Amino acid sequence: MDQVFDRQQPVGFIGLGVMGGGMAQCLLRQGWKLQVFARRDEAARPVVDAGAQRAPSPAALARDCRLVFLCLSDDAAVEQVLFGEAGLAQGLAAGSCVVDTSTIAASSARAFAQRLAPRGVTFLDAPISGGQQGAETGTLACMIGGPADAVAALREVMGAFCKAITHVGEVGAGQTVKSCNQVAVAGALLGVADAIALARSQGVDPKVMREVLLGGTARSFVLEKHGQRVIDGDYQPGFRARLMRKDLRIALATARSAGAGLQGAVLAERLVDELCESGRGELDWAALGLLVQEKGQG
Amino acid sequence: MDQVFDRQQPVGFIGLGVMGGGMAQCLLRQGWKLQVFARRDEAARPVVDAGAQRAPSPAALARDCRLVFLCLSDDAAVEQVLFGEAGLAQGLAAGSCVVDTSTIAASSARAFAQRLAPRGVTFLDAPISGGQQGAETGTLACMIGGPADAVAALREVMGAFCKAITHVGEVGAGQTVKSCNQVAVAGALLGVADAIALARSQGVDPKVMREVLLGGTARSFVLEKHGQRVIDGDYQPGFRARLMRKDLRIALATARSAGAGLQGAVLAERLVDELCESGRGELDWAALGLLVQEKGQG
Repeated sequence: MDQVFDRQQPVGFIGLGVMGGGMAQCLLRQGWKLQVFARRDEAARPVVDAGAQRAPSPAALARDCRLVFLCLSDDAAVEQVLFGEAGLAQGLAAGSCVVDTSTIAASSARAFAQRLAPRGVTFLDAPISGGQQGAETGTLACMIGGPADAVAALREVMGAFCKAITHVGEVGAGQTVKSCNQVAVAGALLGVADAIALARSQGVDPKVMREVLLGGTARSFVLEKHGQRVIDGDYQPGFRARLMRKDLRIALATARSAGAGLQGAVLAERLVDELCESGRGELDWAALGLLVQEKGQG
Repeated sequence: MDQVFDRQQPVGFIGLGVMGGGMAQCLLRQGWKLQVFARRDEAARPVVDAGAQRAPSPAALARDCRLVFLCLSDDAAVEQVLFGEAGLAQGLAAGSCVVDTSTIAASSARAFAQRLAPRGVTFLDAPISGGQQGAETGTLACMIGGPADAVAALREVMGAFCKAITHVGEVGAGQTVKSCNQVAVAGALLGVADAIALARSQGVDPKVMREVLLGGTARSFVLEKHGQRVIDGDYQPGFRARLMRKDLRIALATARSAGAGLQGAVLAERLVDELCESGRGELDWAALGLLVQEKGQG
């Protein structure tokens, strides 16, 4: 990290899905030159139409960019883009920087950082939260792990798609905090799902119950938003159950690898898994509330 | 219920513990005449010193009061005061009203209301939240179940110790909503306890993690307050683990009796029970976070 990134050089972006596509558009709108790699034309087209260059491979992109963002689906996809055939590692110059906004295991993030370090490449884990809307409006929150000077150098460019960038520790810490967020919201939804099932079982209007609870010690974003979804039976995603299953599995594996056991997260993963196995993995994960209701009656 | 209660007649109060003592003092401060019953002199003394009359039995108190508040420890204590020897039922006139602020089972509340109805006595379940501080400062929140006209008639007098009185349905609904509150906070704490254990297992500062999460979808009162307690290892009550065990057991029994099953609450009850069985029932129930940490390492 020898300088702050500027708008003269192209920034690389790989992973133009629902989240990455929005983030790439934010970068273009803020005047950053963008070079992208995408296997599928449909993924590349909107950003190319908006002014991005399309590279033929990650390695080719790496030769033009000192900073590359990743926004991929899982650990294997990140590894493939970094170290696979014509991967980024073949093109990145010493002093360049890879910022991975995917949600993957903290241990994978640390391993990737270690493998890139001998080449003089800094790898930072920078998982995001805020959903599709946050990506499109540039209002994501990012938990970033890595060297402090690299984080400082990244604040301007990442400000294109983030409203909050919190440096939470060394590489891997970003993923850890993201996992913490997912287990915390999972526990909160367990409580909200039970509360709604209990109210209904007693003939108490869950809307009234939710209103009362929002005024007291049970108040939470999850009660407010996911609680409303469960009460309305509105499970249009949102954040899909199968993605929450992935995130909870990462959290459980991370804890297990450090000899720590989680409690609520084990139960939540089991329920979200059951939701996915019953063909409802594409619903918003708030459908866990539906499952709790069904299981109670079953 | 033929009229609004006024300050000319004494109000009865039975159950002068940590919560009830504070509430009784609030009534006295607001100019209500108070008649109390307490077996123990120590419980009666502070309110008698502040101007309350002490009755020799619930039945005697009932003969002077058209409105009696209860703030007792459990279903059995409420039943004893109502229907035991020299109980309230022996003295209450038709048209009088019993407001039970204890946390008991919704089914017990409904049963007590049914047994009192033939005497023309209205029984309302009015569990409270807000803790000792809320009782002392008159800022409790109350979820009340019973006839709407009775609730309307009670608002002025209950305003002495409540800042919020929400009519949530027929008799029993107050207890149901209180149970919903307890299962919701229990789930939230499961999530927060896991998040803190996970952060620590990865060498991430849980204080930083909590700050980040408070800015996102995991934000909750429980993360803010109980999360801080777990991070600090501060388990001075607060709300004792053994009382949370009681409340969770009520919630589980209530759900079971209606053929509904709860998920997170079963796990939370098991953990809080383990806390109590290991001699830590007098700690604040946030010590569930300590137990999760221990179990992970064990």
